[in-house]
Amino acid sequence: MITDNNGLTIPTYEDVLEAHERIKPYIHETPVLTSRFLNELTGAELFFKCENLQKAGAFKVRGASNAVFGLSEAQAARGVATHSSGNHALSLSYAAGQRGIPVTVVMPRTAPQAKKDAVIGYGGTIVECEPSTTSREETFAKVVGESGADFVHPYNDPRVIAGQATCAKELVSQVENLDAIIAPIGGGGMISGTCLTVSSIAPDVKIYAAEPLNADDAARSFKAGYIIADDAPETVADGLKVPLKDLTWHFVRNHVTDIFTATEDEIIDAMKLIWKRMKIVMEPSSAVPLAVILKNPEIFKGKRVGVIITGGNVDLDTLPWLKN
Amino acid sequence: MITDNNGLTIPTYEDVLEAHERIKPYIHETPVLTSRFLNELTGAELFFKCENLQKAGAFKVRGASNAVFGLSEAQAARGVATHSSGNHALSLSYAAGQRGIPVTVVMPRTAPQAKKDAVIGYGGTIVECEPSTTSREETFAKVVGESGADFVHPYNDPRVIAGQATCAKELVSQVENLDAIIAPIGGGGMISGTCLTVSSIAPDVKIYAAEPLNADDAARSFKAGYIIADDAPETVADGLKVPLKDLTWHFVRNHVTDIFTATEDEIIDAMKLIWKRMKIVMEPSSAVPLAVILKNPEIFKGKRVGVIITGGNVDLDTLPWLKN
Repeated sequence: MITDNNGLTIPTYEDVLEAHERIKPYIHETPVLTSRFLNELTGAELFFKCENLQKAGAFKVRGASNAVFGLSEAQAARGVATHSSGNHALSLSYAAGQRGIPVTVVMPRTAPQAKKDAVIGYGGTIVECEPSTTSREETFAKVVGESGADFVHPYNDPRVIAGQATCAKELVSQVENLDAIIAPIGGGGMISGTCLTVSSIAPDVKIYAAEPLNADDAARSFKAGYIIADDAPETVADGLKVPLKDLTWHFVRNHVTDIFTATEDEIIDAMKLIWKRMKIVMEPSSAVPLAVILKNPEIFKGKRVGVIITGGNVDLDTLPWLKN
Repeated sequence: MITDNNGLTIPTYEDVLEAHERIKPYIHETPVLTSRFLNELTGAELFFKCENLQKAGAFKVRGASNAVFGLSEAQAARGVATHSSGNHALSLSYAAGQRGIPVTVVMPRTAPQAKKDAVIGYGGTIVECEPSTTSREETFAKVVGESGADFVHPYNDPRVIAGQATCAKELVSQVENLDAIIAPIGGGGMISGTCLTVSSIAPDVKIYAAEPLNADDAARSFKAGYIIADDAPETVADGLKVPLKDLTWHFVRNHVTDIFTATEDEIIDAMKLIWKRMKIVMEPSSAVPLAVILKNPEIFKGKRVGVIITGGNVDLDTLPWLKN
């Protein structure tokens, strides 16, 4: 870790190497899948890094495990806590369960039931809040004040970003000569980890972020040159509603080539296409990159592109293409 | 191939080795996935051989490719034809497309639209029949009479069984010390291929077949000691409605340890459980083995069990747990 002029603690690639050693017993090296059909459709060579097949069904188990297993015994005894729209919650619950320490999660009451069930299944305690960033942060402050638990932020935490960075580290070792990597952006944890790894060991690889048009605060921030945060955007890509924070903004600002957006229909169509053609279950949030690739063929045509499928925790009873 | 006293042409393991060399350029060596959750739930160690991730979305591309690429140039020029409830149809269409020869498919008019679309997408021609074995065979006789195409039966064909046998060949090389393999049974092509491989190279591995209770003709045949065929059974496992024939009965009779059945609800529950926990899209037919394992824990507990996920071609607009 280094500290910059503004007092921001920034993880380095040394932290990524340490994180990877620390978390290896608790995560999968997830497979990279390809689809001839999708390659022909896009004109690109797409390499899908399947974090939907990760422990707890999402990449977030990497950062959560790095935080949990890096705690001192004394800190660990007081447990961990977080607020999350879903996958970080159950990933932290999984990691805490692996270490045998308590975990409390503040979660919007509107979060998918599948995610709430999974948190409880992993032994986590849920405290509900309203579905806005403001309510979430207020409720959470109370919870931590009472328990003294260690706060593991879902993305704006150098331990978490160092953990997420192990995903791109695997991808770069699994696929040679990538031209670009594209990942969804919400709070920016996965993108920041990707930036950290790629800028360190594969600096020629371009990094693109994909965002729902309905929650396009990161794209607007990127153009404006400062963080813009929306309080309660509405999108089917429920993992991507949260805003950038100072640490993730540091990585986005310095290392991302561009941020593209996709509409709700484009996201749902891309999701269904992946389910149908690749035979994998993944979340709406994970479909935003393919939606963006299909919408901007001139950027990706002829390129070797790593596409991060961030998670697979979807409520099978309410699939988005079956609504109405 | 050998010919028995009744004039039945039976493939040998030599044919399997030849088939594997012949079809390798056109198929995937599919991955084996595991799930800690499902292992804990069943008390067994389950190794899921994911033929849903196979080319054309099903194991049937193995047998179809072996038949198509084994044809002489003269035979190939007249094309191939088949009748099939779905996956063999699109697998044969895929294989014929790879060789660049014509393919005609007789298919029940009630087959899932997703499967019809896929056949057409691979360049196949569809001729529709009524959803009964009788109608299918009558319609097909006409088609072959007119075109002179080579008939590639979906399962009762030694070339097809030698091709399907490459799936168990891969599985045995991917997972050490299996105690048993379980696969769905319809016409018996996959089970016969499994019997052929396992009896040749891993004779201590037990072979179990899993069948819908609503289409339990193979289980009844197994108990009776002769083939019993139902004309038009109704089950959500639409790949498993067809009856055993002489060649598949030969393998089932000689090498299968037992055949277990599962109800429609048990099949649907097992299917949803696999989607939810393993994050893979697979067909109702492919869920029958897990349904059977959950129903007969005493048979599988403590055992290392290969479970063949036969296909992933499901209509995403009509998922069985969302009906009513």
